[in-house]
Amino acid sequence: MTHHDYDRLEDWLRANRARHLEELFDLLRIPSVSTSPAHRADVLRCAEHVRDRVAELGLTARVMPTDGYPVVYGEWLGAPGAPTVLIYGHYDVQPAEPLELWRSPPFEPTLEDGTRIVARGATDDKGQFYCYLKGIEAHMRVRGALPCNVRVIIEGEEEIGSPNLRPFLERHRELLQADAILVSDTSMHGPDQPSIMYALRGLAYLEVTVRGPSHDLHSGLYGGAVPNPIHALAGMLAALHDADGRVCVPGFHDRVRSLSDAERAEMAALAGDEQAFCAEVGIPFSTGEAGYNHLERTTARPTLECNGIWGGWTGDGAKTVLPSLAHAKISCRLVADQDPDEITSLVADHLRRIAPPGVEVDVRPHHGGRPYTASREGVAVQAAGRALEHVWGRPPVFTRGGGSIPIVADFRDVLGLDTVLVGFGLTDDRLHSPNEKFELRNYEQGIRTTCRLLEELGRGAAAGPGEAG
Amino acid sequence: MTHHDYDRLEDWLRANRARHLEELFDLLRIPSVSTSPAHRADVLRCAEHVRDRVAELGLTARVMPTDGYPVVYGEWLGAPGAPTVLIYGHYDVQPAEPLELWRSPPFEPTLEDGTRIVARGATDDKGQFYCYLKGIEAHMRVRGALPCNVRVIIEGEEEIGSPNLRPFLERHRELLQADAILVSDTSMHGPDQPSIMYALRGLAYLEVTVRGPSHDLHSGLYGGAVPNPIHALAGMLAALHDADGRVCVPGFHDRVRSLSDAERAEMAALAGDEQAFCAEVGIPFSTGEAGYNHLERTTARPTLECNGIWGGWTGDGAKTVLPSLAHAKISCRLVADQDPDEITSLVADHLRRIAPPGVEVDVRPHHGGRPYTASREGVAVQAAGRALEHVWGRPPVFTRGGGSIPIVADFRDVLGLDTVLVGFGLTDDRLHSPNEKFELRNYEQGIRTTCRLLEELGRGAAAGPGEAG
Repeated sequence: MTHHDYDRLEDWLRANRARHLEELFDLLRIPSVSTSPAHRADVLRCAEHVRDRVAELGLTARVMPTDGYPVVYGEWLGAPGAPTVLIYGHYDVQPAEPLELWRSPPFEPTLEDGTRIVARGATDDKGQFYCYLKGIEAHMRVRGALPCNVRVIIEGEEEIGSPNLRPFLERHRELLQADAILVSDTSMHGPDQPSIMYALRGLAYLEVTVRGPSHDLHSGLYGGAVPNPIHALAGMLAALHDADGRVCVPGFHDRVRSLSDAERAEMAALAGDEQAFCAEVGIPFSTGEAGYNHLERTTARPTLECNGIWGGWTGDGAKTVLPSLAHAKISCRLVADQDPDEITSLVADHLRRIAPPGVEVDVRPHHGGRPYTASREGVAVQAAGRALEHVWGRPPVFTRGGGSIPIVADFRDVLGLDTVLVGFGLTDDRLHSPNEKFELRNYEQGIRTTCRLLEELGRGAAAGPGEAG
Repeated sequence: MTHHDYDRLEDWLRANRARHLEELFDLLRIPSVSTSPAHRADVLRCAEHVRDRVAELGLTARVMPTDGYPVVYGEWLGAPGAPTVLIYGHYDVQPAEPLELWRSPPFEPTLEDGTRIVARGATDDKGQFYCYLKGIEAHMRVRGALPCNVRVIIEGEEEIGSPNLRPFLERHRELLQADAILVSDTSMHGPDQPSIMYALRGLAYLEVTVRGPSHDLHSGLYGGAVPNPIHALAGMLAALHDADGRVCVPGFHDRVRSLSDAERAEMAALAGDEQAFCAEVGIPFSTGEAGYNHLERTTARPTLECNGIWGGWTGDGAKTVLPSLAHAKISCRLVADQDPDEITSLVADHLRRIAPPGVEVDVRPHHGGRPYTASREGVAVQAAGRALEHVWGRPPVFTRGGGSIPIVADFRDVLGLDTVLVGFGLTDDRLHSPNEKFELRNYEQGIRTTCRLLEELGRGAAAGPGEAG
């Protein structure tokens, strides 16, 4: 592409700003909460909505079934000889609860202060994958073609662990062949600091139910002589970390790869001010595993967190019940080379072992995902680096992510490719929380970046790995 | 009264069985859940319903306001020179949740197997106070008069701790003057074993909220470096009992009156088979404070039970949230001479003290009630004993109750009288639980007992304490 081409792309993007925002709002209005059966119709409607948007770009687009929610697939293969990039995103979102903490309804997107797009899914992941669609659109409208071949898959089950994506990849291995995989479902290290994520934590999620008496009892008539499942569960949860804040499930750390001195030095430099981190989340100081800073704790060390607990009377006022059941949802974040199935077993066995006498414990695994560490050296990573530096004015930093995108491990297994994780979110985007937002600037820079990135990928591969090295 | 009079009463009761059951069903259909603001209109409607039923008996009846739900008051003072009995009951009920565990809807009463009245409030306390109304009705219809003077107060806030009853007693001290107080809101020691309860436990109920980060966070991005309020709360709850199952809040036991050897011997005899107790509630063995049997644990020893806990994601599926807040409802059952306000302070202070660094703890007291121990020797108790023996064919046993009826301590303070607690419930009535029931036989025997009891009270006081001694 010439400088003139870039100017035309830039002019076109400027001319279409308002429409791009409106289109994203339309997408955010669909409450595609994949974990909630009540939103089933919305999730399916969202898939069709996304397919229509992909088709409008000039790609061949279709909704492809899985055993769960469908995958939207689009392709444009009009650049013979050029490399092919596979772009992944997800159209499903987390539940919006607790609703009362939102400043505006979660599925009525608003632009706050003219700068922040506030809605469930704004940054995770609707706003981010939409950057790719609009970047593709810019090339197609301005130049009538893309700089490289493109396949797009947007799935609807990321927030419930992508249970049907791996079978989908295996079934459509041929269709999905590519030279690079791009995913934007992560955060930048800081505002205007472009970042490429080279590691993600894995996940083991389980639900535990403790049963005391066979039915709810009056706590006056029975209190004192019957095992209370809430106390049992509390004691069990309290025994999962030692005094140093370290997970003390036997075997939990056996496969944990230690950080190298170089990585620790890099992370010490990146960690920045702990007080800024604490101010962002509203805590007096960072807690957690002794001997590690907050960045290591959230990205490079394994964790165990209780994500939910309930039992007995949780309504207004006082009810003197001694409940039959107490429940907790627990998730562990894993680092290389922990295995989610093994960790689930270890935690489940430990919970059963430490349960006090007189109660029954049932542990049910939810989904899991393997931890992931990618090379920083590939052609696509280097192309992404150049695109980011061009658009943002500074080179990217390489970061570790605390979250999990289990499918990147599947991409590697099934398609044989590492994934380039180029995030446009910010760490204060409150993803999974009330008032989730996506900065308008990041949305627009994200579109610009994907425009450039497609170009760099087309050019980079044509020039071969040598240039990129 | 002559034997002929008793025969006529008995004939009349038999002739009115079906109507008595229908009337109780009508009362049970009103969801008078005092703790739930959503049921406010139902509670008020229930008061008017009860007033109408009292008025139909031939008593002067009215709904008297308090700062909360009103008290239904009725009186019949047509026996000059005869003693006056004050009868207390409550028309409010516990919440019915969890609804899915009921065999039939909680406010659609049914007669199961022709023997069990199943509904919320069946035994606590609508069925029991209705025994008095129907006993009074029998005398009025058959003989046109009562054997003694009667005042009735039926309140609407017992299940939320009767916050307005003591001011009501103080304001209407003159109106409520009596020679004896009768309450049926307790259980019999066993089927066909009539019982008089001489001790009740007190109550201190509080709600604790633990705050970690200022808003819900993504547990992947922040997990490991931020205090999780669920883990903090679990640790605090786990630290409230020692290894012997004893409450270990400092100062908690300071005022606890020990059981005498005689009382322990009596309770050992009454306790019966622990396996039967365990089978009833569906547990393998009784847990709790070491060194005491299950009957002592549930009636004569103080306890601390978590009645409810919630925080984070409690819906279906998996949400990877690190919540801002976690909550628990905690109640202590108290024995003489523990003071509810002092215990509330001790527990609240202890919770704040043992909270881990980095979280904020807020403790809010709900209602409390003092423990109660009554004389077994008064005229009214003796009259009750004779009535029970006549109707049930065996003398009553004297028992301790594990629950709380805080107003009996107020009756003693304000009106200067002990209360005779004659219960018609059974220990397997599941009060406060799904499928609460009241045995039809106990309803009918309860009506018969109150008939006889009014007669015994009229006669006993006329003869003077000497005979009763």
